[in-house]
Amino acid sequence: MKRREFLQAAGLGLATTAVAAPAIAQSMPELKWRLTASWPKSLDTLYGTVEHISKRVAEITDNKFQIQGFAAGEIVPGLQVLDAVQNGTVEMGHTAGYYYVGKDPSFAFATALPFGLNSRQQESWQQFGGGIELLDELFKQYNCHAIPTGNTGAQMGGWFRTEIKTLHDLNGIKMRIGGFAGRVVAKLGVVPQQLAPGDIYPSLEKGTIDAAEWVGPYDDEKLGFVKIARYYYYPGWWEGGAQGHTLINIAKWNELPKNYQAVLTAVIREAGLIQIAKYDAQNPPAMKRLLAAGAQLRAFSPEIMEASYKAAQETYAEISQTNPLFKKLNESMSAYRGDAYLWWQIAELPFDSFMIRQRTRT
Amino acid sequence: MKRREFLQAAGLGLATTAVAAPAIAQSMPELKWRLTASWPKSLDTLYGTVEHISKRVAEITDNKFQIQGFAAGEIVPGLQVLDAVQNGTVEMGHTAGYYYVGKDPSFAFATALPFGLNSRQQESWQQFGGGIELLDELFKQYNCHAIPTGNTGAQMGGWFRTEIKTLHDLNGIKMRIGGFAGRVVAKLGVVPQQLAPGDIYPSLEKGTIDAAEWVGPYDDEKLGFVKIARYYYYPGWWEGGAQGHTLINIAKWNELPKNYQAVLTAVIREAGLIQIAKYDAQNPPAMKRLLAAGAQLRAFSPEIMEASYKAAQETYAEISQTNPLFKKLNESMSAYRGDAYLWWQIAELPFDSFMIRQRTRT
Repeated sequence: MKRREFLQAAGLGLATTAVAAPAIAQSMPELKWRLTASWPKSLDTLYGTVEHISKRVAEITDNKFQIQGFAAGEIVPGLQVLDAVQNGTVEMGHTAGYYYVGKDPSFAFATALPFGLNSRQQESWQQFGGGIELLDELFKQYNCHAIPTGNTGAQMGGWFRTEIKTLHDLNGIKMRIGGFAGRVVAKLGVVPQQLAPGDIYPSLEKGTIDAAEWVGPYDDEKLGFVKIARYYYYPGWWEGGAQGHTLINIAKWNELPKNYQAVLTAVIREAGLIQIAKYDAQNPPAMKRLLAAGAQLRAFSPEIMEASYKAAQETYAEISQTNPLFKKLNESMSAYRGDAYLWWQIAELPFDSFMIRQRTRT
Repeated sequence: MKRREFLQAAGLGLATTAVAAPAIAQSMPELKWRLTASWPKSLDTLYGTVEHISKRVAEITDNKFQIQGFAAGEIVPGLQVLDAVQNGTVEMGHTAGYYYVGKDPSFAFATALPFGLNSRQQESWQQFGGGIELLDELFKQYNCHAIPTGNTGAQMGGWFRTEIKTLHDLNGIKMRIGGFAGRVVAKLGVVPQQLAPGDIYPSLEKGTIDAAEWVGPYDDEKLGFVKIARYYYYPGWWEGGAQGHTLINIAKWNELPKNYQAVLTAVIREAGLIQIAKYDAQNPPAMKRLLAAGAQLRAFSPEIMEASYKAAQETYAEISQTNPLFKKLNESMSAYRGDAYLWWQIAELPFDSFMIRQRTRT
């Protein structure tokens, strides 16, 4: 379009404005929302997801819909995001469902639970395997509309001051461990602690805890664990693929025009896609730096893996006896996982295994 | 807001409209675009991505930005999407970059190439590992702005009429095989064919080809291959994670208001997230159905895997001698892969391997 034509068209726009404008004004109201996160700003993987949501929603709506992000502790502590959204202190939150297993153990299924799903399976179970419908029953009880938002990928098993070779070595270990896993490792004699990320390092340094897991190399490096607990265990069998969630106060969600609901859903999912890609790009060089800084990589022994698996299945059976939603979620996830790994062992695992063998040979 | 207040606010909106409206009109122009895809509508995984983009963009923009999708053959054949976007026949396309390796073998890196990256690595290399910047050099030569859009996950190695046990058995096999892999398998004596999905079954049925690979169980079941070639090989080592791309004519992209560019980027990435989740949900039950229908699962032998790997590396070295962009892409991807699999073997692979072992034991 030439400049003159553009000016004419703009003029035409002005002339017809009186009719068209109310519909536009109604569908793009000016909103200022607050989003509180479970993360400090220093964790740019997780908090970066919040920043992306704010920025992208503003871009799409010409700054009409503004979402201001707050780090853990600025409005509420990192482990109280659900409460803040539930009671309307903020309109939105970004958190991990499993921080709220104290309210209902079913929340574990939103994020990850021991020997659950890997990251792609967790996303697909929630989207297409009936997961989000079951989780909605739970989130609605807490006035939340929940949208899956990013994943960390399979995590590490954490940092220990001493080597853990046998089940006996786990006995009495005070460990920061996320979500539902605490209940499982307690069966193995571990004393679990749930701490927000900012509180982990001081506790480990003071000796209040003996071990700590957070996520994986990139985040763990920022939190500095290698300096005080050098044995770095894998795999984090309690988080094969930990999924975050964006929570939106359900009354606020229902008040949104449909187009803003569509904006939020699309942008939140986009942010999730970016989050795991960022983890996947940042974890490998971080692992190399940690190894250079003295981290000692150790695999959990088969004895520990097997006993943990058994403890997890016992825990699920116990809770299922009294918690019907937990039972439904566990049955849904377990059935999904059985089929998902039937497929995974045919195409994904042989490809990855072959590539890993070639890597170490060339 | 109560009804009376709302009406007052709406009235206020009317009064101030004359000033505000031109900005809105300018940032949300009415647009009707056409998107041509490489897929038939029957492949609801891939074509579903197109439908999602159309629907979501319309929802967000109150139908002001309309994108009409067309299946392969409706405007141009499935393997000419790049050309149609390049010359402005359509504004957008959804395709696989590696269909255009005849124009430049560097296009293979957009999608997948033999012994390349898995799906998460491919996404993260493009987003954060320098991949998309290098690919942009290529796509810009063809007047395209390219956005990564979804992945199939690791694919299967295709359907063969007869068992392929040794390298000798591959000699002279006429095979439909996607993208760049044809050049590699040609070194092993295979006669490669590039066919759009709708043309594969008839060719296999008539005996024009002896074998065919498409994607994986869910799509392959729709295309009906099990009826005429029952040996189903894995893994599809030439597509560890095949990434699709949305192409936008670059002049059309540059004309878009910034907010529409943001809408498209967010929605296209969201569609990508949905696509792989759908594959991951649909492939496992499809595999079970295919096995029930008589598919005979076979792994490629170590001899074939090793010879294919060697043939791939030779091919990359040959092309790198005369194609500087291919060389840069190969160096970037290879370095990324080395680190990515160092990490993958620590957390992801041991988790998946353990879960697969438990699955077959319980």
